[in-house]
Amino acid sequence: MPKINAERLLSDLRRFAQFGAYRTGVHRPTYSTQDMESRRWLAQQYESAGLQAHIDGVGNVFGTPRSKQRSLLIGSHAESQNHAGRLDGALGVIYGLEIARSFAEQPCCAGLPIAPLAWADEEGHYSSLLGSRSFVGDLTEDEIDRAVNVDHGLPLRQALRAAGLHDVPRYLVEPERHVGYLEAHIEQGDALEASGQRIGIVTSIVGTWQYSIVFHGVQNHAGTTRMAIRKDPGLAAARLSTTIADRFPQKAGPRSVWTTGRINLDPGAPNIIPGKAVMLFQFRDAETAVLERLDVLLRELVQEVAIASGCQAEVAQTEIGLPRHMDPAFQEAIEKSAARHAPGAYVRMPSGASHDAQIVGKKLKTAMLFVPSRGGISHHWSEDTSDTDVILGCQVLADAAESILRGDLGIAPGAP
Amino acid sequence: MPKINAERLLSDLRRFAQFGAYRTGVHRPTYSTQDMESRRWLAQQYESAGLQAHIDGVGNVFGTPRSKQRSLLIGSHAESQNHAGRLDGALGVIYGLEIARSFAEQPCCAGLPIAPLAWADEEGHYSSLLGSRSFVGDLTEDEIDRAVNVDHGLPLRQALRAAGLHDVPRYLVEPERHVGYLEAHIEQGDALEASGQRIGIVTSIVGTWQYSIVFHGVQNHAGTTRMAIRKDPGLAAARLSTTIADRFPQKAGPRSVWTTGRINLDPGAPNIIPGKAVMLFQFRDAETAVLERLDVLLRELVQEVAIASGCQAEVAQTEIGLPRHMDPAFQEAIEKSAARHAPGAYVRMPSGASHDAQIVGKKLKTAMLFVPSRGGISHHWSEDTSDTDVILGCQVLADAAESILRGDLGIAPGAP
Repeated sequence: MPKINAERLLSDLRRFAQFGAYRTGVHRPTYSTQDMESRRWLAQQYESAGLQAHIDGVGNVFGTPRSKQRSLLIGSHAESQNHAGRLDGALGVIYGLEIARSFAEQPCCAGLPIAPLAWADEEGHYSSLLGSRSFVGDLTEDEIDRAVNVDHGLPLRQALRAAGLHDVPRYLVEPERHVGYLEAHIEQGDALEASGQRIGIVTSIVGTWQYSIVFHGVQNHAGTTRMAIRKDPGLAAARLSTTIADRFPQKAGPRSVWTTGRINLDPGAPNIIPGKAVMLFQFRDAETAVLERLDVLLRELVQEVAIASGCQAEVAQTEIGLPRHMDPAFQEAIEKSAARHAPGAYVRMPSGASHDAQIVGKKLKTAMLFVPSRGGISHHWSEDTSDTDVILGCQVLADAAESILRGDLGIAPGAP
Repeated sequence: MPKINAERLLSDLRRFAQFGAYRTGVHRPTYSTQDMESRRWLAQQYESAGLQAHIDGVGNVFGTPRSKQRSLLIGSHAESQNHAGRLDGALGVIYGLEIARSFAEQPCCAGLPIAPLAWADEEGHYSSLLGSRSFVGDLTEDEIDRAVNVDHGLPLRQALRAAGLHDVPRYLVEPERHVGYLEAHIEQGDALEASGQRIGIVTSIVGTWQYSIVFHGVQNHAGTTRMAIRKDPGLAAARLSTTIADRFPQKAGPRSVWTTGRINLDPGAPNIIPGKAVMLFQFRDAETAVLERLDVLLRELVQEVAIASGCQAEVAQTEIGLPRHMDPAFQEAIEKSAARHAPGAYVRMPSGASHDAQIVGKKLKTAMLFVPSRGGISHHWSEDTSDTDVILGCQVLADAAESILRGDLGIAPGAP
């Protein structure tokens, strides 16, 4: 069995968090100077571990084993959310590096090819899950032409040029070259911590369906317009939000979640009845049938509210991400490893968050491992995981990787 | 009886609408080049009508009769809302000018002193009702120091300096010099048009109570945070808005109005449960007792919603405008005049909108006259009133002014 180097793992995580350090976290948006420095640093580490390193045309960093055998991809995304945590993405990236090095160093596993990698822009500074979508062939040149930075509006093409990536080819998945893909990540919720578990084995990644819902009413003077004749789209949006809260539980699954993230009233002045209200709404579930049921209910509720308020409604679905089930054999490998290193402290669970694994899973066998998030906090610089859980997660993933590769390559445990 | 010059009235309204002309309306923010040109033009007209003209230190334009007798102030505000109508404010300003001229020209009324005026910044580009509050002594130098333009942030002091007003004294009301104040205005609602009336005699101007309500919850990941543990301040704000809609009618007066003008969720991203929601809310009524009742109810509902949602709530009252009742004798004078010129087509009504008259009414006898707004539209460039209603309103106000001045000065009708 491979033994990971816990000191080196923690040290590399600390080193990686220096790229864009911000308070106890990092600010490392995709293609920023700090992000590109971190990717070049990773490529150097891959080379030092005996791998061929490449940064492709969207910034994905690949460490390719020199062996001709099918390899197991292990990684996550390298960039961070704005002013966010040091582990979201970085954890899985450094796990991949550490496992590749451990395997290369140790006679037990030196022949088992690990291909560590780091995706670009899972966090969507330009477009969510950009790097992994490029890898599986779901990213068109047209989308690259159109994408701009959500914070400062820089076109993606200009960002790629500034990062020196504009003439670099993008790497596409070659399924016959890879055994599959493993990704470790912080949980970003409190389920593990709340139940005293230390390892989560992801069963599926939920699908996210997102909507922009617009109500059009009649803008008017807030003092002179009688209540009886108002057509107030702001009230319609508020009514939709509360009606969803009241009625979704009847149709939702036990783990469904739904969120109104934004309500904009136009023009937004205290003494003007708004003329328009825009609401951003999403729901998530691991079952497509549940997502479809909630979509039907949402559209019914929008119509009910529109009729009751005298407003016109438009519903635009802006994201239709289907749930992705993780590979059963890979889940089994992670579970066996967890049972060995953390007996009684592991659990199978769906992922409520999106991850590159849901994209890679379209083309390759894929599985994910979660470690606990302290207080369930994520997307904030105070996000953290204890060192012992960080070390445990890496060791569990390393053992799972060994058993997956041995199974796939037909090599008996312990063989050189 | 004075007879107004209808052609001159319409011509002056057209001329005044050239200052900052925008589509069929005007864009003439307070202290803009166009606004100051319109004020200087007014001052010239006052001088031509035999009055002493002054622009004071906040831009109020006064036309002062040379007679020592107590005069009747007639006017409104000269500036417009952004990209708004040609009559909001301008109507009452040009009525004052036309009535002053008609009185001066006609032997019947030449001895009755009319003092036309134009207030500055009723519309609140820097601070609502600025000019009239300055006139009654409610505007401090400290407030002038602090005020900035709501659109572009220019400090009021700098705007006054640019307009050449920084060393000019502000005029304060001298109650013994004035009989009272009359203001004509477009209705800004549809009550007159809907009931086929042509003249509104304002009984009172509603009080406006305004609030900033903040709910604090727990910001978290929209995918990984179970519904059961959420403390969603956005949902609390939506719930408050709908609960107000459901429960206010039980405590409100027949003409109470209430409006949620803005709901801001922070950070406002589709995949983040907001951590904070800010809601701007106001209600209006002509009776203080109703306002007090609604204030108590609002605070109860905020607490109910906060407890139910697990959020913390803060309520800050940002405006406490008390209702202002118009002078009964002045109302009577307008009504008699309306009965003469528009028999059966006038009505007493409260004003749902704020006006300078509510401020001046603190120190002087005050009344207001409304003319119909086509389609009830205001604060939009398409706002309009028919020429025949514009002419009628001015004639009704002129006759009312004569009867008020004769009553006050003890001059019999028709006496030279």
